[in-house]
Amino acid sequence: MKIDVLTLFPEVFPGPLGSSVDGRALRSGVVEFNAVNIRDFAKDERGTVDERPYGGGPGMLMNPVVLTEAVESVKTRDSVVVLTSPRGEVLSHALAAELAEARHLVIIAGHYEGVDERVIEEVVDREISIGDYVLSNGNLAAMVIADSVIRLLPGALGDIASAEQDSFGDGLLEFPQYTRPPVFRNRAVPEILMSGDHGRIAEYRRRMSERLTRERRPDLWEKFLINEGLK
Amino acid sequence: MKIDVLTLFPEVFPGPLGSSVDGRALRSGVVEFNAVNIRDFAKDERGTVDERPYGGGPGMLMNPVVLTEAVESVKTRDSVVVLTSPRGEVLSHALAAELAEARHLVIIAGHYEGVDERVIEEVVDREISIGDYVLSNGNLAAMVIADSVIRLLPGALGDIASAEQDSFGDGLLEFPQYTRPPVFRNRAVPEILMSGDHGRIAEYRRRMSERLTRERRPDLWEKFLINEGLK
Repeated sequence: MKIDVLTLFPEVFPGPLGSSVDGRALRSGVVEFNAVNIRDFAKDERGTVDERPYGGGPGMLMNPVVLTEAVESVKTRDSVVVLTSPRGEVLSHALAAELAEARHLVIIAGHYEGVDERVIEEVVDREISIGDYVLSNGNLAAMVIADSVIRLLPGALGDIASAEQDSFGDGLLEFPQYTRPPVFRNRAVPEILMSGDHGRIAEYRRRMSERLTRERRPDLWEKFLINEGLK
Repeated sequence: MKIDVLTLFPEVFPGPLGSSVDGRALRSGVVEFNAVNIRDFAKDERGTVDERPYGGGPGMLMNPVVLTEAVESVKTRDSVVVLTSPRGEVLSHALAAELAEARHLVIIAGHYEGVDERVIEEVVDREISIGDYVLSNGNLAAMVIADSVIRLLPGALGDIASAEQDSFGDGLLEFPQYTRPPVFRNRAVPEILMSGDHGRIAEYRRRMSERLTRERRPDLWEKFLINEGLK
């Protein structure tokens, strides 16, 4: 896969994407990553990319001509063009898996103030939000989308981590985990986990996952029941 | 405010938090930001921080002794200790505003595999998830939480951006925005936005916001109706 991020802050990329799982994927060629400076497509020598919105209001919008030309400088027939946007569909594990099928992702790190609607009509395939909170700009959102996708690419993860993913895939929250020492500040590891009885351990963990999901995330619990045909 | 991030990848901080709004807040002293390397608290010379989970299973957990000591090296009576975790409460604008009241935030960038449950019982105040997707580790989540909080701190934003925030605060998605040129690839700016009639423009934008929210995010629309006493 190839990922191009279009941004006004190319210097922050790959940044956190250069470490850990993503860093290995970048170095091994599982993914080719590139940051494009939108300002390179400005029409004047001062590198102006912002314009005031028609109809007034706070904040500035990115010039549609500049932004569209920046997208078209990398876009091919194989591209899926994503705009980070608080108005977008909310990122989920399933959506990341869908994006991971693309051969080329173009991610526009939007200003929070927004993007001229005609750019969206002209070149954007999907508007995606990483959650219902306000960020300073789209750079972190672009990184989150890229990370959620890269780790799903064939070859990005070893077997161990792939198994984890599957456990997320069942739609339940993770059960509590414990490691050495057996007693830490008077808190002991639940005995069953030291029993060696793998059947009972699996059952215990499943029960804990279900309880946590029910208590903390009634919305996910509801979806889980429907998916399992229990409701 | 002071923010300490505890991480195994201190080199990626402040990274994207060093630019734009956050960068100005860091440089002007609105927020004091510090990354703590959890590995500095390892008990052996090899810097071991990972242990296998009791009861088996894929992935490694952070040693509870090491992680707790790392937290306690920065924690004071004024600290709110946050663990990034897919099991946590989901970050929202309201939760970010609540965290912005703290004098000291300690954010533990968790491994995805998880953290020994006893660390959570012992030193963690809140588990927070930035969304229902899997990330390689907690670093991006820690940055997203920090960014959503920093921009709400007094002095972090100018007046223009503060106004934007308010518009998010009403619980509706943003209306479509347009800027120059008036016609771009045969797509014209809606006439009403060029009318100069601020009353009608405000009404038009409000109607568009409501329509977008209803169509794209029935969950937010439901909350909006309840908050407005319309349901």
